[in-house]
Formats: sequence, structure tokens, C-alpha cells
Amino acid sequence: MKLTILGCYAATPRTITNPTAQVLEIQNRMFLIDCGEGTQVQLRKNKIRFSKIEHIFISHLHGDHFYGLVGLISTFMLLNRVADLHVYGPKGIKEVILLQLRLSGSFTGYNLYFHELESTESEVVYEDDKVLVRTIPLKHRVYTNGYHFQEKEKERKLDINAILNYGIDQCYYQKIKNGGDITLDDGTVIPNKKITTDPEPPKSYAFCSDTVYDETLVPQIEQTTVLYHESTFLESEAHLAEKTLHTTAKQAANIARLANVKQLLLGHYSTRYEKISLFREEAETIFPNVLLSDDGKVFEF
Amino acid sequence: MKLTILGCYAATPRTITNPTAQVLEIQNRMFLIDCGEGTQVQLRKNKIRFSKIEHIFISHLHGDHFYGLVGLISTFMLLNRVADLHVYGPKGIKEVILLQLRLSGSFTGYNLYFHELESTESEVVYEDDKVLVRTIPLKHRVYTNGYHFQEKEKERKLDINAILNYGIDQCYYQKIKNGGDITLDDGTVIPNKKITTDPEPPKSYAFCSDTVYDETLVPQIEQTTVLYHESTFLESEAHLAEKTLHTTAKQAANIARLANVKQLLLGHYSTRYEKISLFREEAETIFPNVLLSDDGKVFEF
Repeated sequence: MKLTILGCYAATPRTITNPTAQVLEIQNRMFLIDCGEGTQVQLRKNKIRFSKIEHIFISHLHGDHFYGLVGLISTFMLLNRVADLHVYGPKGIKEVILLQLRLSGSFTGYNLYFHELESTESEVVYEDDKVLVRTIPLKHRVYTNGYHFQEKEKERKLDINAILNYGIDQCYYQKIKNGGDITLDDGTVIPNKKITTDPEPPKSYAFCSDTVYDETLVPQIEQTTVLYHESTFLESEAHLAEKTLHTTAKQAANIARLANVKQLLLGHYSTRYEKISLFREEAETIFPNVLLSDDGKVFEF
Repeated sequence: MKLTILGCYAATPRTITNPTAQVLEIQNRMFLIDCGEGTQVQLRKNKIRFSKIEHIFISHLHGDHFYGLVGLISTFMLLNRVADLHVYGPKGIKEVILLQLRLSGSFTGYNLYFHELESTESEVVYEDDKVLVRTIPLKHRVYTNGYHFQEKEKERKLDINAILNYGIDQCYYQKIKNGGDITLDDGTVIPNKKITTDPEPPKSYAFCSDTVYDETLVPQIEQTTVLYHESTFLESEAHLAEKTLHTTAKQAANIARLANVKQLLLGHYSTRYEKISLFREEAETIFPNVLLSDDGKVFEF
């Protein structure tokens, strides 16, 4: 699981900081999460191949999370993209993108699918044989969803020495990976556990931005491998967090602690603070495993 | 007259090149012309104060000329702007900007006026005591206007020595600047020319992007001080220019020659070429005074 932070600062794009966008690579899928202005340039800077992005998840329609989307869609068009593109986001996203394409006399040569979201309950928005993505309804000033990316249970690992010892034919390997027992020609049943080892536990990534402090999130993100939780403010500005429906670093850490996640990754920093290390320091008073996102940073989990 | 090029490359924003946007300072007015994605960051990089921009002129609704507008309008909002903002551009621009503001639950605290254009004839879109701006209808794939910025005739310059010699009171100075003759107490009439000198000739700037080669432009931009004319291609790609309704450097130079402008400024380069100096070399075979725009370049005329 590899996460590239393209931008992780709140509000306006600046010379040295970018609004929210990140790329999650999981089981060889590449998901773009949010798409603030300048995301396409950040993708280029971080050498991410445009053609590998087939699914874009937008949390909400504030500019710092979505004003780069129409430009990216247009650029895909100019680059003669042929692969389908799926966009997941709040209702309204289709209208505003299509209006802009129409006004520019453009149409995409590729299939562009919009999956508009309206539900305030968590729902599965994407599923294939290896990954499942569901929404995490968030409380913000406009309709907002986080996204939870979950690897599915992986195949069991073959214990090749044991398998060769039993003289099991290669044609049974997939059955064994799927957890099946094997019956030898002499009728002996070999239990799966004797010829396999446990796979790596499935990993998960939860993206929660933007949201007010909200403990109802906890059951939805319990035991998540990595939780990205916004921390727009420090506790000294808790009143602003409450007023603007954002979270402080300490509150984010509290959610991480309650949900018992493995790692907390902070981001969506207000640019009022001089050093982002302040966010980690504050969060670490509550929860031990805190990482700081920053533009251009790559995490492997 | 000062021109700051924020971006002057065609099509998609890239790591090192920006789509079209430029700031014209003329008679202490600051006009933003076009607003591709990333313009607000380019404004910051070039240290242009956001609050000084009160009029934005958009040529057409292709992304590389306008996808940065909604972000700039939002940033003005976040910066608690109070001054009015006027946006001039093709019909539809109001709908798409307001839709995005509505979807983000935002409203500007300042007055935002849209001046939507539909005419295919040149029209005056802005006028004050010192500057007049009119459209230059262009032929492109969508409805497009260039803009012509014209300083008005300036006040005559006082010849202070002559004025003191005649003992003329200060209260007549404005009348003299306006070109008036003065009658002394003894009835002698002093012709204006004896107590003033000619002012600097009024300057003008014509912005023509994007357009096919079109000689009907010539009468509209005759004698212009500086003509910015797009040169997306070189002559070697003249067939692409014709197909996409763009211009080659040589064609742009021909327009400059026919219109007898003082300076030709090239821009809107396709990123297929290795060196933009090729555009100047080609244009100079037709017209002598050729300048190359480039991102971050500042011209004083």
C-alpha cells in the first residue's frame, strides 16, 4: 500500500503548498482521492502516470478538494485517453463538470462515468476481487464523504516444501490458495493448514477530510491500518475548528485512539501555523503512532 | 504600461509552464486577462496584490484560459475581499461560476458582477476617464474575444516657465491641461500651444488569443503599441493551426505587419517545440519588432 500526498493544506493554493489530493496505490489499483486546483501539475511532479488513474474519489465540493478535477478530465482528453474514468462524489459533480465541458465545446473521447452520492449512510461505491471501497459519511459544512479502502482477505501462501513432499500436482495450487483441503490418491485428506501459511493480513486506508470531531466515525474505521484524519487546527484554535466544522490535531488523535488504528496520518493543515511539526507534537500527547503528511511525501505501509 | 505574463503556453498546465493569464497595468489600473488553472499561484509568485485586481477579462471558455477563475474568486472570498469584482467573458461564465459557488455552499462577501458577452461585433466593455477597453471578436472553435486596451488622450503638459512668465494663476492650470487658451487681464489671448507641450502619445495593448489567421482583425488593431498575438504553432505545423483554428508565428507576424503595430509579442506556444526562440526567428522574417512572452516575464512599454 503506497500513498503519495500531492497536496495536504487547507483553503487556498499557495506558492509552496497545495490543496488536497492524494494517490493511493493498493493491490496495483491506483486511486486518486480529491483533486484540488493544481493536482494535474502535482501528478506530473510526482511522476504518476495519468493513464493509471481510473477512479477518482471526491470528498466534497469545496474548491480546495475539487477545483482541479475539470482540468484533469480535460487534460486526459487532450492526451487522447481511451480508458474509462470513474468519478465518485457528491450529487452536483456531474452537472458542473459537464457544463464546463459543454461551454468549452469539448467532449471526452473516453467513457466518463459519474457515481453521484447522496446517502448519509456508509455505502459500498467500488468493489473488485481485491479491494472494496465504501464511503465514510462526514459532518462538514457541505455534504461530505470520507472513503475507506479495504484489501480483501488474501489468498493463503503455498508451503511449497510440504506440497512437494505430499506430491500434490500443480493443478490443485489455486484450490489450496483458496483454503481448500486436498485428498490424495490414497484417500488421505491433507488439511489446508499443513500445506499453507497465513497470508499477510489485509490492509486498509481511511481518508477522513473534512470533518468536525465526530465519534460516530469510530466504528466505521476501527482497526484501520492507516487513518488519514484532517487536523486543520491546533487545540489553541479549537473554537475555530468547532465553528468551521474542522478538527484539531488532538481531536484527530482521539479518534485514532478510540478506533484503535495502527497509524494516524495528519493533514489538511491551516496555513496559519509556522511548522507542521506542531500538529504531530499535539497529537502524540494522545496517540503514539502519528505521521505528518506533506506535499510530495510518499508513504509505504 | 506594464505587462506581467503569468502563463503563456497552450493546452495543459505542466510542471514548468502555465496556461494563459497576464496582468496589464495601465494608468494605475490593473487588469487580469484570462485565468488558466494555477493563475492564483502565479499571481502570488509574481507578487501581484490580489486586492488590486478589480476587472478580469476572459477571452473564451477553454480550460487553459479560464479554469483558474473559480479558484481565484473563492480565494478572494477567503481573504475577505470587500472591493467589487467585475468579470467580462462569454455568455455562460456566470452560470458555471455561480453553480460552483452554490455547490460549495459559498457566497462572496464582495459584489461580483458578470458582464457576459455575446456580440460578434466589437463593443466597448469598460471605460473610465483614462482607459477604454473594447472587444476584438476572434475566430476560434468556441465564441472568443480578444481585448483592446486604449489609453485616452492625455492632458497637455504645462510649460511652467512660460506660464510663470505670463503670470497666469494656478487656478487656470487644469483648463490649460485640457487644451484651453488663456485670456490675460489686458485682453491678450495666449494660445494653449505657447504654454504647454505635447503629452506622451496614448498607448494601447491588444490581446488576441486564441484565433485562426484572420486579416479582418487588422483594422481593429491598427497602430497598436503592443500586439499580443497567439502563435501556437510554427509554419511547419500550419495544417494543425488551420485545423484547430490557431495561428503560426509567421501568420502572427503578418497580422502585426499589416496592422502596422509597434511591437509584436508572441505567446500561447504549443509545448511540442523545444525552444520558444524558434517562434521569434520565424516571426522576424516578416516583422522586425518581435518579443517573446514567457511565464514570469515582465514588460514595460
